[in-house]
Amino acid sequence: MITKGLPLPPLSTIGILGGGQLGRMLAIAAAEMGMRCHIYCPDADSPAFDVSIRHTRAAYDDLDALTRFAQECDVITYEFENVPAATAAHLAALRPVCPGTRALAISQDRLQEKQFFSSIGIEVAPWRPVETADDLSAALAEIGPQTLLKTRRFGYDGKGQVRVSAGDDPAVAIDKAGAGPYVLEGIVPFTREISVIAARDAAGATCAYDPAENIHRDQILHSSAVPGDIAPATAKAARVIATRILDALDYVGVIGVEFFVIRDGEADRLLVNEFAPRVHNTGHWTQDACLISQFEMHIRAICGWPLGSPRRHSDCLMTNLIGEDALQAERLSGEPDARVHLYGKAEVRAGRKMGHVTRLLRPVR
Amino acid sequence: MITKGLPLPPLSTIGILGGGQLGRMLAIAAAEMGMRCHIYCPDADSPAFDVSIRHTRAAYDDLDALTRFAQECDVITYEFENVPAATAAHLAALRPVCPGTRALAISQDRLQEKQFFSSIGIEVAPWRPVETADDLSAALAEIGPQTLLKTRRFGYDGKGQVRVSAGDDPAVAIDKAGAGPYVLEGIVPFTREISVIAARDAAGATCAYDPAENIHRDQILHSSAVPGDIAPATAKAARVIATRILDALDYVGVIGVEFFVIRDGEADRLLVNEFAPRVHNTGHWTQDACLISQFEMHIRAICGWPLGSPRRHSDCLMTNLIGEDALQAERLSGEPDARVHLYGKAEVRAGRKMGHVTRLLRPVR
Repeated sequence: MITKGLPLPPLSTIGILGGGQLGRMLAIAAAEMGMRCHIYCPDADSPAFDVSIRHTRAAYDDLDALTRFAQECDVITYEFENVPAATAAHLAALRPVCPGTRALAISQDRLQEKQFFSSIGIEVAPWRPVETADDLSAALAEIGPQTLLKTRRFGYDGKGQVRVSAGDDPAVAIDKAGAGPYVLEGIVPFTREISVIAARDAAGATCAYDPAENIHRDQILHSSAVPGDIAPATAKAARVIATRILDALDYVGVIGVEFFVIRDGEADRLLVNEFAPRVHNTGHWTQDACLISQFEMHIRAICGWPLGSPRRHSDCLMTNLIGEDALQAERLSGEPDARVHLYGKAEVRAGRKMGHVTRLLRPVR
Repeated sequence: MITKGLPLPPLSTIGILGGGQLGRMLAIAAAEMGMRCHIYCPDADSPAFDVSIRHTRAAYDDLDALTRFAQECDVITYEFENVPAATAAHLAALRPVCPGTRALAISQDRLQEKQFFSSIGIEVAPWRPVETADDLSAALAEIGPQTLLKTRRFGYDGKGQVRVSAGDDPAVAIDKAGAGPYVLEGIVPFTREISVIAARDAAGATCAYDPAENIHRDQILHSSAVPGDIAPATAKAARVIATRILDALDYVGVIGVEFFVIRDGEADRLLVNEFAPRVHNTGHWTQDACLISQFEMHIRAICGWPLGSPRRHSDCLMTNLIGEDALQAERLSGEPDARVHLYGKAEVRAGRKMGHVTRLLRPVR
């Protein structure tokens, strides 16, 4: 990773691809550090536009607009992993893009991601590549009886995923999942889902927050508890794995790594589910329970500032406000030790992430 | 106070007069709650413009611009107490202005402020109104030998203040202080300076943060420690006085109240120095040591949302970054448990508040 020109001085311009809530919270964290943000997003009502000094509204394949955007930025980052490869490559030729294009490419393709994990000795659930119904039949026989068929690309919040059990019609499953190719994953009997938010700077320094225990509902994150019901050795192992991923990718910025915890006799076994090359919904608790949030940590890392301490001052529970949950925002803000965050989205839609509430539970001694 | 139309729903527009760092931090807090801000400020390089969806750059006496501004806002507040009375009156006829025009008028005039404190039984240092050199001679004889001559209006950070001792030439002192009229204040032998940040909503609910112990250098705030070396009874008395001021003013929003602590035998005596009808530099520690910062508390109060808890999770020390101190920002951010805030100001000038650093010291049990 290039460290020339780092640290960026205050008032540097950080370009952010994507204008959703993650971009918005990154832009706020950057402003608090005295940096300026330029948001690039095709959507008119992008929440991140409202808190940034500058924005470009253009398509992700508009190379002229991308060039002008890059020329105004000192460093470029993104809030979503589905940035087209051509977009990332075009920008990377003009300015540093953090995290780098390799992390982006791997995270966009479940097959590459599985192969990457295997290549660095990280254990994952059993999986098989699938292109056709025949492939699916064969794979199901090997790693069934309970599996998930996932498109290799463009899945999030459960989109592009179909549950497939032994005896199901492979052709129907493939039709439901959408355009392939796919990866078939064996459903493992996990006892809980946890995640680690970690960071790495250009000089190779790393840090990791304590893991969160996550609850999903309808395949969307519902809540993250810190500390969850996670054994200290398991928490440590998860932080170590996250750091190993960062180092293997020569990564700069914040990463979110999701794990399944499997009970294995007296010990826990950790399988990595996936990583996101960006700030992560399961790290929103860091805004209120840590001095340095995941958003500031990311901005520090990509600007070449010292990584802050990931220490937690309070135990906490973060709960997403999804769809009409947001109508309860004012009432929830009246709970003692609760803080409500809203993303400035005008339209309430079912399944749409509108905000979140953090509840501080007890101080960490 | 009018409570009609409260609570304001998310995406309401909060108008803020003044575009400095306090406006900037208010706008960020409002955005985090899903509100929108419209900043009104005559200065081109206003730090608050950078983080707000909308701004008007116009003079404070431009009644047409003020009218258009007000029509776009659901509630109007301000980040500095020297808002011209005519401006405030014009806006208040169009939209709710919080805190109200009475608090603003009193805080703008040291004479009215002293009379207000006396009227509600709050003790202050000895003082006399002064218009001429002869008045000053007479007042000095009564409340000297060590005094401060202060202009009644437009003083901040020690501006418009002259130290006058018995034997000094009154005409010279008056010349130095600038245009009158004035108030002469006796310098009291205080052991420390403390301040309380408190809030009140339209329904009359109040809350107060623990007092900070403040150190000034060259008449500008240098640092605030929480808890300072303040006896529990003294801290409680200070919070009670701040709340009494809020109630007497039928106040809505956050207030900053500064006190002198005088050692009086075994007990402390509290003299109020002044109040500021706004968020206050001595309350910046609440951003990092409390779940609900003074900025969010103010936005909650003026929007009719529940006041949050002023509970502190950590003891802390806030230090201003003044002038070239800001050049140390990146280094300071490498201290464990330190968080640096910068205000996005391009020009470093001696005496200019560029940012602050909060250091968390220990958890509150």
